[in-house]
Amino acid sequence: MASFKLLLLPGDGIGTEVMDEVTRLVEWANGTGAIAIETETDLVGGCAYDDHGEAISETAMEAAHAADAVMLGAVGGPKWDGVPYDKRPEAGLLRLRKDLELFANLRPAICYPALAEASSLKRELVEGLDIMIVRELTGGVYFGEPKEITDLGNGQKRAVDTQVYETYEIERIAAVAFDLARKRGNLVHSAEKRNVMKTGVLWNEVVTQVHKDSYSDVKLEHILADNCAMQLVRAPKQFDVIVTDNLFGDVLSDEAAMATGSLGMLPSASLGAPDDNGMRPAMYEPVHGSAPDIAGQGKANPIATIASFAMCLRYSFDQGALADRIETAIADVLDQGLRTGDIAQAGCKTVGTREMGDAIIASL
Amino acid sequence: MASFKLLLLPGDGIGTEVMDEVTRLVEWANGTGAIAIETETDLVGGCAYDDHGEAISETAMEAAHAADAVMLGAVGGPKWDGVPYDKRPEAGLLRLRKDLELFANLRPAICYPALAEASSLKRELVEGLDIMIVRELTGGVYFGEPKEITDLGNGQKRAVDTQVYETYEIERIAAVAFDLARKRGNLVHSAEKRNVMKTGVLWNEVVTQVHKDSYSDVKLEHILADNCAMQLVRAPKQFDVIVTDNLFGDVLSDEAAMATGSLGMLPSASLGAPDDNGMRPAMYEPVHGSAPDIAGQGKANPIATIASFAMCLRYSFDQGALADRIETAIADVLDQGLRTGDIAQAGCKTVGTREMGDAIIASL
Ligand SMILES: CC(C)[C@H](C(=O)O)[C@@H](O)C(=O)O
Ligand SMILES: CC(C)[C@H](C(=O)O)[C@@H](O)C(=O)O
Repeated sequence: MASFKLLLLPGDGIGTEVMDEVTRLVEWANGTGAIAIETETDLVGGCAYDDHGEAISETAMEAAHAADAVMLGAVGGPKWDGVPYDKRPEAGLLRLRKDLELFANLRPAICYPALAEASSLKRELVEGLDIMIVRELTGGVYFGEPKEITDLGNGQKRAVDTQVYETYEIERIAAVAFDLARKRGNLVHSAEKRNVMKTGVLWNEVVTQVHKDSYSDVKLEHILADNCAMQLVRAPKQFDVIVTDNLFGDVLSDEAAMATGSLGMLPSASLGAPDDNGMRPAMYEPVHGSAPDIAGQGKANPIATIASFAMCLRYSFDQGALADRIETAIADVLDQGLRTGDIAQAGCKTVGTREMGDAIIASL
Repeated sequence: MASFKLLLLPGDGIGTEVMDEVTRLVEWANGTGAIAIETETDLVGGCAYDDHGEAISETAMEAAHAADAVMLGAVGGPKWDGVPYDKRPEAGLLRLRKDLELFANLRPAICYPALAEASSLKRELVEGLDIMIVRELTGGVYFGEPKEITDLGNGQKRAVDTQVYETYEIERIAAVAFDLARKRGNLVHSAEKRNVMKTGVLWNEVVTQVHKDSYSDVKLEHILADNCAMQLVRAPKQFDVIVTDNLFGDVLSDEAAMATGSLGMLPSASLGAPDDNGMRPAMYEPVHGSAPDIAGQGKANPIATIASFAMCLRYSFDQGALADRIETAIADVLDQGLRTGDIAQAGCKTVGTREMGDAIIASL
């Protein structure tokens, strides 16, 4: 039987509540006899800072390197607004991404049929929506240097961030996008601001070259990031795969996720390059954040995190069948009319985090 | 009688068609006897490059400096995709913004009642929508140095863009946002990514300080730019004024404009600092682009550009009454059921650019 090490990093806010439900699904998965998952749990984000003064400890980083996959809940919250910049909750998440070289962030924006009505967009525009946003995750303005604030005296400061991309970084993320497109709608939109940014010019050039060299069977469209933000509102179904840089990916994936009406349902995967055995470093997390406003109340929707665990089973642990079962169970409880507060709907029953977890396990 | 110099820069694509209608409105304004507007017309963008190899000529720049206001149509199009970076159509627009020091870009996102149905968002979410996006326009990643592509040899290139903000740049744009909010809903959202960007940290700090020092009567909310992109889809009416940097402003204003369903209707103003006589350098332009796909067909919606001219009358020429009349005429033709193709609607009459201009002038 295949055995794997999974590091759980619940993080802050609703992170712990939703991760509790994943723990129960790990038990279920182990109970099937198909797999043996050994979990370890550690701190990341504000809770780590509160505990030992850093957003992630060296021990946790070592555990992340040693694990076959990492599951993350969420980090951050107003409680840590005054924390020094390099110790803020997000620094833990960014270090995980960077040190594990998780350059490819896959963010599906799917509209669950039962939730089409929950979208702020008209039903016909989102029903059946299925976009995959492929966001570059270890480069761009998130990590470029210099990144600093200088005191100029006379009450003036100067802040600088630097967006850097090298050819190889764009090549590898483009390849991920084209590979995914081949298994989906065979269409890639590459979003940048080549009309204003040099990184956009290079992005455009490299994606075009990768396409020409190795993926000319896939349809490629270049789109300006501002226009992409418009089109995601106007007619999101025109997209299949969108590949874009770290910062545009941050904004556009959140916009797309919200457009589906299924934000609390959306998982994500962050992947590195495969090693000689084909294993790639991987971290799975919900698209939503730490939702400090409802934290600790047992109200949070655990489905995005559970769906992230399903992605983990599929992509890191090669257990597609178990992943299918979890995804079917999620669809099933929605069909039964169970809803957490974020997706509450007339005629449906509003339940809490635990009850939603119970229902999914019962359906399994 | 007050007399003013107005420079018309129709630009590329549908720019020339929509500017033709403005020319007729200038004649109308002059005909009222309230004002004497002297116009001059020049090239900007791809057409300027085709004519003399630069995206804007020195003569045109001098005319822009000498004018009391500039009206711009739109620039760019696939025709100029291969043009050297510093001569691309957008370079003309960026030079105008930078050299005239038009640091404050006001982009109203208004839902015209007659068009609420045209929005992809549900009617109740956009009906009555009235947001003002205040975008910083002369700083950030658009102009920061270094901005370059370096050949590293062995097939690798390295592209860099630099986002820079100094305290005074944030102070002056924040003041514009707070001043506007006082005349509107008294609420400002300041959007940045302080959790990832040092410019976001400084932005947050300076806006907070300006608020504390001079505008504590206005309600201020800080919002992460990615969350702002989500909230604009989820519940846009929660916003009154949004103040943000050049790049986020580009993306978020386009998203908001599209959400209104009234994209072809939305004007914008780019303003500099007032001189000793209270005159501020100003450029007015539609929010929409050059729409190369429908250029030259007489189909484009001239209303955004006509509404931009109304803004010019109000803000640069102090002719609020004439501006009111134009805005009323726009509402009037919509009520009459006239629509250009972009806002075509069952039960309404689809007309071209010229017919729409005719109808507005007739209504005046
Ligand atoms: C928490 C934050 C640093 C992060 C980001 O900006 O990448 C988040 O918004 C995300 O999208 O995962
Ligand atoms: C044409 C382009 C350079 C410009 C920008 O990015 O600012 C446009 O998108 C805008 O929003 O005015």
